[in-house]
Amino acid sequence: MRRRGVVILGSTGSIGTAALRVLARHPDRFRVTGLTAFANASLLAEQAALFKPELIGLVSNGIASHAGWRGGPECLVDAALAPDAEIVINAVVGAIGLDATLAAVRAGKRVALANKESLVMAGELVTEACRRGGGELVPVDSEHSAILQCLAGRPQSEVRRVVLTASGGPFRSWPPERLQLATVSDALQHPTWRMGKKISIDSATLANKALEVIEAHFLFGLSYDQIEVVVHPQSVVHSFVEFVDGSVIAQLGVPTMELPLLYALTHPERIEDSGVPTFDPVDLSPLTFERVRSDDFPALRIGVEAGRRGGAAPAVFNAANEQAVALFLEGRVTFGDIPRAIEASLNALNDLDGSSRDALISADTRTRAYVRELYRC
Amino acid sequence: MRRRGVVILGSTGSIGTAALRVLARHPDRFRVTGLTAFANASLLAEQAALFKPELIGLVSNGIASHAGWRGGPECLVDAALAPDAEIVINAVVGAIGLDATLAAVRAGKRVALANKESLVMAGELVTEACRRGGGELVPVDSEHSAILQCLAGRPQSEVRRVVLTASGGPFRSWPPERLQLATVSDALQHPTWRMGKKISIDSATLANKALEVIEAHFLFGLSYDQIEVVVHPQSVVHSFVEFVDGSVIAQLGVPTMELPLLYALTHPERIEDSGVPTFDPVDLSPLTFERVRSDDFPALRIGVEAGRRGGAAPAVFNAANEQAVALFLEGRVTFGDIPRAIEASLNALNDLDGSSRDALISADTRTRAYVRELYRC
Repeated sequence: MRRRGVVILGSTGSIGTAALRVLARHPDRFRVTGLTAFANASLLAEQAALFKPELIGLVSNGIASHAGWRGGPECLVDAALAPDAEIVINAVVGAIGLDATLAAVRAGKRVALANKESLVMAGELVTEACRRGGGELVPVDSEHSAILQCLAGRPQSEVRRVVLTASGGPFRSWPPERLQLATVSDALQHPTWRMGKKISIDSATLANKALEVIEAHFLFGLSYDQIEVVVHPQSVVHSFVEFVDGSVIAQLGVPTMELPLLYALTHPERIEDSGVPTFDPVDLSPLTFERVRSDDFPALRIGVEAGRRGGAAPAVFNAANEQAVALFLEGRVTFGDIPRAIEASLNALNDLDGSSRDALISADTRTRAYVRELYRC
Repeated sequence: MRRRGVVILGSTGSIGTAALRVLARHPDRFRVTGLTAFANASLLAEQAALFKPELIGLVSNGIASHAGWRGGPECLVDAALAPDAEIVINAVVGAIGLDATLAAVRAGKRVALANKESLVMAGELVTEACRRGGGELVPVDSEHSAILQCLAGRPQSEVRRVVLTASGGPFRSWPPERLQLATVSDALQHPTWRMGKKISIDSATLANKALEVIEAHFLFGLSYDQIEVVVHPQSVVHSFVEFVDGSVIAQLGVPTMELPLLYALTHPERIEDSGVPTFDPVDLSPLTFERVRSDDFPALRIGVEAGRRGGAAPAVFNAANEQAVALFLEGRVTFGDIPRAIEASLNALNDLDGSSRDALISADTRTRAYVRELYRC
């Protein structure tokens, strides 16, 4: 069997390490041809010793580099364009992942996309680049992977709507007044998923779900009216698709990123894999569903509105959120400040250009500066 | 758009009338070319006046027939073979439906199969006839329709197992000693589905689920080890498919036979339809799952064993169950006698030939006689 070349951008993060666990189980089908990390040089060196990729890149220039490693943010695009990389797993966090996504889909490659900012900031550019370059975006987010699996190749015209599930995060049942003063350590206690810090906070504010709604809009060509969110604390049903005949298909499983990663590699096929814990509906019973507390978690509504507005608004939403989360993690703003900073940014920066990659990067930079000024950081 | 001709065998029963409600909503796509009923001549006449089929058949010869109607059991095969009938909805109850299924698949038609006895009695003959004649079996049972929808065209080699859901019937939480003396009226109180009497009793004994396991074995080419049953009292998840990568796909919906009927007509496409109540996971929450009480509902285990044994055993299981249920509905045997009669029949009639249609019909007849003798009826 021919082995397909895979590069991982962001190999030392939680998605990257999960991807390597998956790839290690299927050496007959895939080989790792490239690995890049942001700053964790020691883990990257370990991974490189194990998987022996041709290309190794470290984004942070400040760190003393090993012989033969590429340095700086440009290593992401280099890795994405390496000729033996058929599949690019983009697991970089933040706007820095955009250029690699654009380059890979323009070059006709499959991008297994965990970097949701690529689509949120620049969904129109990325989908247009896919169309022109023949590239393919396959989601790695569990919700979007679920939707892709539920669609199973049926055309978008047969879809009535999709329902994204949200765990509700650690504050699902907290009263509104307590929410405002939630600490960083409270917010990092995610009930069902083990994830990086940024995404754990996004999951607590529900900003994560707004990013996913925007992502679903672009990935599946759905209007915002066709995308709903429901709280499902057990994180077992990863999303629903309702078809035009009223039938509903769901994808389920014990929460693990390894399944969506594997599916992003093999889609539309499935291959035998023992990495996913056995599914037993009796053990997982009951499965419960609740409405989103939209007033108490305003980031979701604000983000979906930014998506509907289009242009630079999703990029502003994303950048304001990234910056506010960073300030929250540094202890400089409160949990309640996060959606306030986002909304203020969208109101203040409502005339930015979003028509090109450079305009969007500039909108991103201006938004971050705006949020820092807002809190005098 | 070309309208596809549809005949309904058993048009006055609960499945048949649901099928006509579905067809009435899609006159642009389908036309009813034939209707047959067992004995309800007045409802059949009403249906015929509304849908104006070319062929009308009444199985019961004893009833005074209208001019132009066909009479006797042979009207089923006549209707199934009518040249303008592209799709045959076989909603006949019991072994009497077998010949029409065989005839239709041999003639290369699609059979929307609600008559599960066709597959249970003669699964090997029917699947072989499909292969030879180019016919196609599409399930109407909600569980099997769910599996077909979850498979979405993926090959059987990608399936690890399927999990059929069972409502558990009206006696799900009854203590064992009370079960033995359950009355007919108790057994007809199905918690989630409105159905005919025979299938309601089968649902109370779980014999229904054994029939469905055997049916799934033949429909999807799965071994009995790949088919499990779990109790799901809400009847919202209609079944699960677990693929070899560990991913689980489920089909869900408010319980209605109209959806599987529509899907059997349009598969693999889906068409806009307003007949299925809107799905709201929050309204339907919680969804719970329990293990089957196999010792208290032995018909399931006995039936699956008959399936594994193969040959005439599934036909004996089916006939013994049909006869015992009939005697139970007449008040001649107790609820607890139903599985006892089935097990006694399988033990006594373990050497019957099952290699041909005639042998299976003879096994059916002998089994019914055996059960009647057992209770001196």
